[in-house]
Amino acid sequence: MKFEVTVLGSSSATPVFNRNPSAQVLNCNEKIYLIDCGEGTQQQLIRFNIKSARIDYVFITHLHGDHYFGLIGLLSSMHLNGRIKPLDIFGPAALQEILELQFRHSETVIRYELNFHVVDPDRPGTVFENSDLVVSSFPLNHRIPCTGYRFSQKKRQRKLIKEKVADVPVVYFSALKKGQDVTLPDGRVLPASDYTTAAEEPRSYAYCSDTLCDGTYLEAIRGSNTIYHEATFLHEMLDRANETHHSTALQAAEAALEAGAEKLIIGHYSSRYKTLEALLDEARAVFPQTQLALEGRTYTL
Amino acid sequence: MKFEVTVLGSSSATPVFNRNPSAQVLNCNEKIYLIDCGEGTQQQLIRFNIKSARIDYVFITHLHGDHYFGLIGLLSSMHLNGRIKPLDIFGPAALQEILELQFRHSETVIRYELNFHVVDPDRPGTVFENSDLVVSSFPLNHRIPCTGYRFSQKKRQRKLIKEKVADVPVVYFSALKKGQDVTLPDGRVLPASDYTTAAEEPRSYAYCSDTLCDGTYLEAIRGSNTIYHEATFLHEMLDRANETHHSTALQAAEAALEAGAEKLIIGHYSSRYKTLEALLDEARAVFPQTQLALEGRTYTL
Repeated sequence: MKFEVTVLGSSSATPVFNRNPSAQVLNCNEKIYLIDCGEGTQQQLIRFNIKSARIDYVFITHLHGDHYFGLIGLLSSMHLNGRIKPLDIFGPAALQEILELQFRHSETVIRYELNFHVVDPDRPGTVFENSDLVVSSFPLNHRIPCTGYRFSQKKRQRKLIKEKVADVPVVYFSALKKGQDVTLPDGRVLPASDYTTAAEEPRSYAYCSDTLCDGTYLEAIRGSNTIYHEATFLHEMLDRANETHHSTALQAAEAALEAGAEKLIIGHYSSRYKTLEALLDEARAVFPQTQLALEGRTYTL
Repeated sequence: MKFEVTVLGSSSATPVFNRNPSAQVLNCNEKIYLIDCGEGTQQQLIRFNIKSARIDYVFITHLHGDHYFGLIGLLSSMHLNGRIKPLDIFGPAALQEILELQFRHSETVIRYELNFHVVDPDRPGTVFENSDLVVSSFPLNHRIPCTGYRFSQKKRQRKLIKEKVADVPVVYFSALKKGQDVTLPDGRVLPASDYTTAAEEPRSYAYCSDTLCDGTYLEAIRGSNTIYHEATFLHEMLDRANETHHSTALQAAEAALEAGAEKLIIGHYSSRYKTLEALLDEARAVFPQTQLALEGRTYTL
């Protein structure tokens, strides 16, 4: 099952050096989930040839503009481009008010169903679930209420071994896929382990947009295979990171290590860093499996 | 005196084919005026190496998103980049409410003075004036209230001819520059026409963002040296233009001709036109001095 994320924006605060504000698209089993939506996200989608019509779910972490100023434009364009299928948005309560005010003054009546789901920034919880995955939110510690999101694939059923089940009546397939041994009417026993192979282990991706690296959200991201963690500053800027409720590359690496992740993606770079090697080096010294969030690049999760 | 406009966005409704929503920067005597501010305007400013810190005045025509969704991001970035000098915004009343709501929820207290000037969309009037120019607004006929803006240079004083005035007491310079002949205490008369040269004729630029081409605004733009007029459609789409309160390239050309303009810039192209030659050809057949609004290109006015 495809489980990958494409980075659309990697900049903190303001666009700079061709870096754009935060946005990522998660592709899980060919369904597209947009995570944050800074200004210019729709332009980035065009640039990287990702059809915005494919986005069915949007998750916004908080109301700093570099994480959501592109949403109203994206929603408007979806409307103008004739979208009719529903769109689900998850985010802070006030986001709905902001969107509605702008639609009202442009006299836009969105033709598609816009389902708004308020995410509680103060407590963790499941915010969405379908056949492929469960999305949970968890509080981050930023200057304004801010939530991280964790996208966890569901455990999938075992896969039938085609040649082996050729003579097995279809009625038993469901039990076998669930890993249950089957007893046929003639008394023959079919062990699930002989007739099926194990499904891939479910994987998960945790997205920590803007946060003081204080460990409060470690339990929520523990065991994620891949963690995206903001790394706005080098550790030499720790005071500034603390003051602005952001993290350093070193801290992001320590969080990934502590949470038992396999891979770490860092991003949300301060405009003071024209090049990013120093941030990557700092993180890799603690957590070697670190990668830089680079716009247009797709990361297998 | 420099009087030129740089196009940042040329697309109608949605970004497409590397075309961005409406925005232009007018440079009059090295002061920068931003006209409309679609999503991604700050990215376009970076791309074309125009410092947003130089913008002191912003004019928004109406509240369709392709004309203002980039403003909140630009204002936020100015704040984050340490701006302290005031900024003046001219536009619809509700724009202020939209900006304030977003600042409130991001807990942003803008450090610079943001002076908001409500422009009446129903009647023409002067909205701004400084030593270089006068800006007037005039009603356009769009689906929601919409105003055009005309930027008119002020008549400048005559220029002293250095060699001629070498022996003239400075006290008489002011009168000469105003074109008044001067009589010296000894009875000698200095004709202003001998001691000064005429200043350049003041020029003006009219910006017609989104409008049904119904002639109602012709008086307001008459005599403008250069007119920017939207040309969303080819004339074969006249019904669609009427229905959506937009103009065709042919109509834009007719408006420029009727208004006595020297030059016409057309823009706000529908996404149905991947290439723009047909729009240009259609306009030039009526008004040969037509140019396409192309992003990054600067037009002497």
